[in-house]
Amino acid sequence: MFEDWSSFAVEVVEAVEAVEAVDSINAVAAIDLHVEVDTADGRRIGLERALRAAIRSGRLAPGTPLPSTRGLAAELGFARGTVTSAYDQLVAEGFLIARQGAATRVAELPGSVARDGSGSAPALARPRFDLSPGLPDVSAFPTAAWLRSTRRVLTTAAPVDVHGAGDPQGRLELRTTLAEHLGRTRGVLTTPDRIVITSGFYQSLGLLGSVLAETAGVRAVAMENPGHDTYRDVVRRTGHTIVPLPVDAAGARLERLADPAVGAVVLTPAHQYPTGVPLRPARRHEVCAWARASGGLIVEDDYDGEFRYDRRPIGALQGMAPEHVAYCGSVSKTLGPGLRLAWLALPRHLVEPVVRAKLHADWHTQGLGQLVLADLLARHDYDRHVRAMRLNYRRRRTHLIRRLTTEHPWAGAEFTGVPAGLHVLLTLPPNAPTEPELLSRAAAHGIALRGVRNLWHNAQAPTQGVLIGFAAPPLHTWPAAVEALTAVLGER
Amino acid sequence: MFEDWSSFAVEVVEAVEAVEAVDSINAVAAIDLHVEVDTADGRRIGLERALRAAIRSGRLAPGTPLPSTRGLAAELGFARGTVTSAYDQLVAEGFLIARQGAATRVAELPGSVARDGSGSAPALARPRFDLSPGLPDVSAFPTAAWLRSTRRVLTTAAPVDVHGAGDPQGRLELRTTLAEHLGRTRGVLTTPDRIVITSGFYQSLGLLGSVLAETAGVRAVAMENPGHDTYRDVVRRTGHTIVPLPVDAAGARLERLADPAVGAVVLTPAHQYPTGVPLRPARRHEVCAWARASGGLIVEDDYDGEFRYDRRPIGALQGMAPEHVAYCGSVSKTLGPGLRLAWLALPRHLVEPVVRAKLHADWHTQGLGQLVLADLLARHDYDRHVRAMRLNYRRRRTHLIRRLTTEHPWAGAEFTGVPAGLHVLLTLPPNAPTEPELLSRAAAHGIALRGVRNLWHNAQAPTQGVLIGFAAPPLHTWPAAVEALTAVLGER
Repeated sequence: MFEDWSSFAVEVVEAVEAVEAVDSINAVAAIDLHVEVDTADGRRIGLERALRAAIRSGRLAPGTPLPSTRGLAAELGFARGTVTSAYDQLVAEGFLIARQGAATRVAELPGSVARDGSGSAPALARPRFDLSPGLPDVSAFPTAAWLRSTRRVLTTAAPVDVHGAGDPQGRLELRTTLAEHLGRTRGVLTTPDRIVITSGFYQSLGLLGSVLAETAGVRAVAMENPGHDTYRDVVRRTGHTIVPLPVDAAGARLERLADPAVGAVVLTPAHQYPTGVPLRPARRHEVCAWARASGGLIVEDDYDGEFRYDRRPIGALQGMAPEHVAYCGSVSKTLGPGLRLAWLALPRHLVEPVVRAKLHADWHTQGLGQLVLADLLARHDYDRHVRAMRLNYRRRRTHLIRRLTTEHPWAGAEFTGVPAGLHVLLTLPPNAPTEPELLSRAAAHGIALRGVRNLWHNAQAPTQGVLIGFAAPPLHTWPAAVEALTAVLGER
Repeated sequence: MFEDWSSFAVEVVEAVEAVEAVDSINAVAAIDLHVEVDTADGRRIGLERALRAAIRSGRLAPGTPLPSTRGLAAELGFARGTVTSAYDQLVAEGFLIARQGAATRVAELPGSVARDGSGSAPALARPRFDLSPGLPDVSAFPTAAWLRSTRRVLTTAAPVDVHGAGDPQGRLELRTTLAEHLGRTRGVLTTPDRIVITSGFYQSLGLLGSVLAETAGVRAVAMENPGHDTYRDVVRRTGHTIVPLPVDAAGARLERLADPAVGAVVLTPAHQYPTGVPLRPARRHEVCAWARASGGLIVEDDYDGEFRYDRRPIGALQGMAPEHVAYCGSVSKTLGPGLRLAWLALPRHLVEPVVRAKLHADWHTQGLGQLVLADLLARHDYDRHVRAMRLNYRRRRTHLIRRLTTEHPWAGAEFTGVPAGLHVLLTLPPNAPTEPELLSRAAAHGIALRGVRNLWHNAQAPTQGVLIGFAAPPLHTWPAAVEALTAVLGER
């Protein structure tokens, strides 16, 4: 048995080498049936491709009889078996029809092939200065640490743990490290068995929406007004109506939670998006009391809670009511949104339904990224990066506000919110250009900004303003970005 | 301006170093309020944690007045400002209530904290021999090539392209490479602008189900019977009922597509799961004709189409009707399911709604993995790996069938299907043990197999059998796995 096996292994290696040798042969082209046979990948493959192309393009019409295999082989100078194999292949694929004792014919194909003139999609244009809110400076991504951890994971973990079928709840290594990390840095009170790893906040929100929709009677979710417009779409897609909660200087107003149809409320307690106000203590108590009394769920979107500049970050609301809050975090504001790595710290009763929804959504989040992040966390490379970026962003924010305040293009323009996060909201007074004017001016100068009009639930936005993200530009372009922005705001 | 800036940059670096220096200081513990203050992370932080823990645990009950900041500071030997800051922090977080002219008190917290005794989830147990169907040998994962490509991407691509906000449709580099690759290897006729990158087949199927549910009148999806049971759950979750299509020696029978409520059919044309039969040419034509006439969608799950052992793989059905087929592929059977990288080649009219559904599902698939895969494809490392594994798996399959046929434990047991894929279906005749008996015997020997009973849509499975995956065990354990399996099947 084992002797057989070792000879098999040798044969496998030899066969691989043989295939690779064949691949390097480039033969010349032959012509027939008005089709060109490119034999670079072998005669049979070339003939099949040529026939398929001719049939798809309509040059070989349905019902057309093909030459006999003997005749075509002679014409092409191929072995007859090559042509027979090619015909067999195309019969199996449905391009040709073979009947006993009759010529092989072209089959009828449904529809025609829509192929673009160009055949390729346009690349996304990047702005010269990306001042979109909510994006970190990914040029500072800890590439060396990430590569080190990737190498470590790929060379030390069991391949089946990295590349095999994964746990829909997420890798235990990452959940264990996160439970400690979130407790230490955000005051989140959780355990690894109550954490679910997801592929970003969009997915976290969608999974929760989907699970809530299965709960009897829950058909409405309360969300801050203004708030992130796409998140409303995500919740709507899971079958809910949205109840808007106005935002004042103390954060979201909670009166409308009294509506018994409301089964959940989505909040940004540390730093309301977009206004930048934190949810004040009385409101924190009020919403926890609502959850306790009604059985409703608080979805805490802690999207940039790591970044507070005037004091230590306020701990997560979750720490006050762990059995009533689904805490949502991610690496999108710390490392970059491209990684699509996020987490939920859940009340115990939601773990099982959320894990089932995750299985049905995408089975599990990619294993390699989870293990690399766990390694970065365990080695404190992650903490070091967050601390460095916090200092960096704090200085940028101070610099930006000082500069724009000094230039004060319009009396009455204000920056709202506390010193935190990755953006400021600049409100536009009546003497300023309108929001669309300002955005189009900025775009003309290669500056990406975002307006606030779409962030209100209905069309009548009470405020005009622009969101200025100060984190995304690489450090060396930041001074130029501020110059360009100042020039745009100062234009008459 | 620029002078200011360079001094700012220096300050940032110095500040980072200062933070790192502080982190390395370990101070001793102090005691008060029956709480231990661990000052390893600083006095204020330690005091805050100790107070939070005492409040959460109930040791400091709601309403309890705290000592004055002056008194506590003296007792602890801390600066008064430290205690004041800690109180302020906990007031902001809602743990304490401060009133002008009165003592600061402990706030009332909703609910109590549920913390596990253990605090950590159990690790997944791995079988000694994993003969589950559909899993590739991830111990052969091309680690060196993957690491090379990862390094190349991380050090040459713009960070914003790797880690920044991505395109919900997927990276253009990967879509471009895939369009060529799928055309060459699977006869898929598509262009980069009709490909959508997803996070695995579960997600591909869920996105299509979700988009179909938005189409007027579509509330039923036809699926093969038997077929993958979890995929039915995925489709059901998007709001559809499932219409079962019986499978015979020519593949799925299509009569029930005549039901006008059926808006789509999910098929495994290259290698029906689990029976292993391909969809014969007449059926391929029949289903394309149905799609053309009804406007229905064919979802082609080409889950292991790369692996055919007796001939070249049959081209994708998609090539016959690109405007009527949503072609689904992934790296799960070639590289490993842990990567969660997959693709859809779509009819043009579905691109925009599927991309919107993808945005709402998880924004986009992780950027780094997409770019690494594109690099592997472009350098043909991917092709080389697939060819090597094809030879390897072909030999394993032959070896397995020869061995089990020679031992023929039960007259009438049969292997169904063509030589392809990563599994065989062994049907169990009446003189054999029942399916559950056999699975539990196998489990007792550390062998993971899968039965077929759950694969039928209703409880009455007409066939008993076991699915034997021959690809997952690492090559060096394969002989022992076959020995173990033979022993289990031969048990009396």
